[in-house]
Amino acid sequence: MDFFRVQTTQQVKEILRGFTLLEAEGVVLEDALGRVLAEDVTCPEDFPPFARSAMDGYALRARDTFGASEGGPALLEVWGEVKMGQRPSVSIRSGGAVRIATGGMLPEGADAVVMVEHTQLIDERTIEVFRAVAPGENVIQKGEDLKKGEKILYRGHRLRPQDLGALAAMGIGMVKVYRRARVGIISTGDEVVPIDSVPQMGEIRDTNRYTLWALTLEAGGEPFHLGIAKDSLEDLRKKLLEGLYKGDMVVISGGSSVGTRDLTIEAISSLPQAEVLLHGVAVSPGKPTILARAGEKVIWGLPGHPVSAMIIFMTLVAPCLWKMGGRKGWDAPQPWTLKAKASRNIPSAQGREDYVRVKLSLEGGELIASPIFGKSGSISTMVKGDGLVRIEMDSEGVQKGEEVEVWPF
Amino acid sequence: MDFFRVQTTQQVKEILRGFTLLEAEGVVLEDALGRVLAEDVTCPEDFPPFARSAMDGYALRARDTFGASEGGPALLEVWGEVKMGQRPSVSIRSGGAVRIATGGMLPEGADAVVMVEHTQLIDERTIEVFRAVAPGENVIQKGEDLKKGEKILYRGHRLRPQDLGALAAMGIGMVKVYRRARVGIISTGDEVVPIDSVPQMGEIRDTNRYTLWALTLEAGGEPFHLGIAKDSLEDLRKKLLEGLYKGDMVVISGGSSVGTRDLTIEAISSLPQAEVLLHGVAVSPGKPTILARAGEKVIWGLPGHPVSAMIIFMTLVAPCLWKMGGRKGWDAPQPWTLKAKASRNIPSAQGREDYVRVKLSLEGGELIASPIFGKSGSISTMVKGDGLVRIEMDSEGVQKGEEVEVWPF
Repeated sequence: MDFFRVQTTQQVKEILRGFTLLEAEGVVLEDALGRVLAEDVTCPEDFPPFARSAMDGYALRARDTFGASEGGPALLEVWGEVKMGQRPSVSIRSGGAVRIATGGMLPEGADAVVMVEHTQLIDERTIEVFRAVAPGENVIQKGEDLKKGEKILYRGHRLRPQDLGALAAMGIGMVKVYRRARVGIISTGDEVVPIDSVPQMGEIRDTNRYTLWALTLEAGGEPFHLGIAKDSLEDLRKKLLEGLYKGDMVVISGGSSVGTRDLTIEAISSLPQAEVLLHGVAVSPGKPTILARAGEKVIWGLPGHPVSAMIIFMTLVAPCLWKMGGRKGWDAPQPWTLKAKASRNIPSAQGREDYVRVKLSLEGGELIASPIFGKSGSISTMVKGDGLVRIEMDSEGVQKGEEVEVWPF
Repeated sequence: MDFFRVQTTQQVKEILRGFTLLEAEGVVLEDALGRVLAEDVTCPEDFPPFARSAMDGYALRARDTFGASEGGPALLEVWGEVKMGQRPSVSIRSGGAVRIATGGMLPEGADAVVMVEHTQLIDERTIEVFRAVAPGENVIQKGEDLKKGEKILYRGHRLRPQDLGALAAMGIGMVKVYRRARVGIISTGDEVVPIDSVPQMGEIRDTNRYTLWALTLEAGGEPFHLGIAKDSLEDLRKKLLEGLYKGDMVVISGGSSVGTRDLTIEAISSLPQAEVLLHGVAVSPGKPTILARAGEKVIWGLPGHPVSAMIIFMTLVAPCLWKMGGRKGWDAPQPWTLKAKASRNIPSAQGREDYVRVKLSLEGGELIASPIFGKSGSISTMVKGDGLVRIEMDSEGVQKGEEVEVWPF
């Protein structure tokens, strides 16, 4: 591979395809939200394990209600009540009904439940039913929700609240998920100082430390700090080694521009089993990006400009973390988007993907995306923005009024 | 207020409007992602604190490049280099240029930067410039990104990675955010058993414990378990008291259906300063919902059906947590939505908001929403679904091909 040629995001994703998955680990359901399944889940049993009532009412034989109406109700004898959490003590024959609450177990012989609202108690043992019910009505059959042997959740799926509910329903209290990637964060540059120090003239506070930390969290990784590396091979190499020892990935910001690029590449190349895979992506802002491997560990060199670093993280580093973390759909061009209308022309150079920060507003029920122009180093364009519009490589831009897809922050 | 009348979600939100905000607390930036600001943030200083180069190149006077082209380059003398992190040692006069890297401090007298790509070194001290630059070009002016005194972030804003970056740039390492609400979770019902026990006939595992836990996390709260309450006033009251003592909110599931409603209301009413505010919402699934206060603490009684409980949590309990947590826009009808086309007719009863689970697919570049029909107790409808479509109270449903808004999971 010619790594001096600038690569497209799709080409970068082809490289990522070869990266190794992290190992799996077991977690209890309370810790499983947002984690990615490392195995398919097959229902070990039927759920519900018995036919249950979906309503408060009376369990009965549906055919006993056929023809029933407000004017001509069906009369049924009440044979008691289903106690919650217990097998019903009576079974139903024609002419009989049993009081049942939502979730109660359907008695033998009953095939439907009539809602309490459609009945009236005549005396202690007799009800009028004003509406016919069909067999199965207001009943959740055994296995109707989850069938024994059915695959319900798949490897690569990111667990949502309802998925945890389904696992709980089947008595699965622990699941195998991919381990979170540990991501070491390095800021570089002789001009960069910690945020609690007062910058002297020419110095600037370390912004990327925090944006990259938060983006790592959002992408499901576990960030850790490696501090600020001075523009020295020794310092950068030492921090890189520490990061690769402790983590699965190291993200360096500020080490990819002309002045420091050679230093970064030299530091990476000096590492055991190191290989630079990529140098430059056709993305704006963010072109000067480095991707390297050292064995199975991954190194990203991002631009120093906070906005460029963020956009490369969102478009490439996050998908890399998803890939390593086993997440299905990691290679989609972007997460789902909102459709909006461009408030004005947005010009763009061909030959690169352009990420324009936009503000969203509603005008007459229609979503409008207004570009926020600003230099790529201006963090305020990201703060004032509500999302990004990607302008494709082969496009010269977007016309006023054209539909755009907004990738919301 | 007539609490026997069923309330709409808008009416419920009017009740929530009166609820008290949680206190503020200070957090460091590493812990601030997703937290809600409890104060406006005003820039304490200009950022950048000095004019910086936005490119690798040469700092110079723009007028020295006027008229320069490939055919007729401007010749300039190179007077050295701006060292990163240092105040430049030279100042620029007409005819001079200084090498500068991205982020370097602009020397006195210079008003623009020409990109290194548009120059050529003739000898050690002379460059040709092939393109004219305008004054200010490739320069980020002092205060251009963030201006001293400018309000940049507002109370009620949920902090994103870029917001943390802006705070870091200004040297703000700690922010005041609203405390997370502590939410106690109770499942009720004689039929409900812990997930690690084998249910006997008529018994069912505790699903809501996990779905409500995860939904609380997603809404920014801190969940804690109070366990399974049997259908007894004493047990429910004891768990409620424990929850209100330890937390800001208690969420009871399964205590709002006909069989147990009176018990739940009796347990709530027996608490000090307790007041039932609501009983029944015009939402399907989820109608039998209870909202109560005990002093400044909040109690929700949700249906026992996992799907109904989830939908009421998403539509009402989450906004309640956002309101208490100071989040701006907590009262929006729903988070932002995806526009899709209904794959078939979706009927709905008037007089209630209907939440239909849908699966999303792409057909010819168009997003299609296919309803998943199933009984409201079926957790699998939520697991198989990608989102919810809300059908408004005054609508009889959606026609095939009609545009719907999907609230993605």
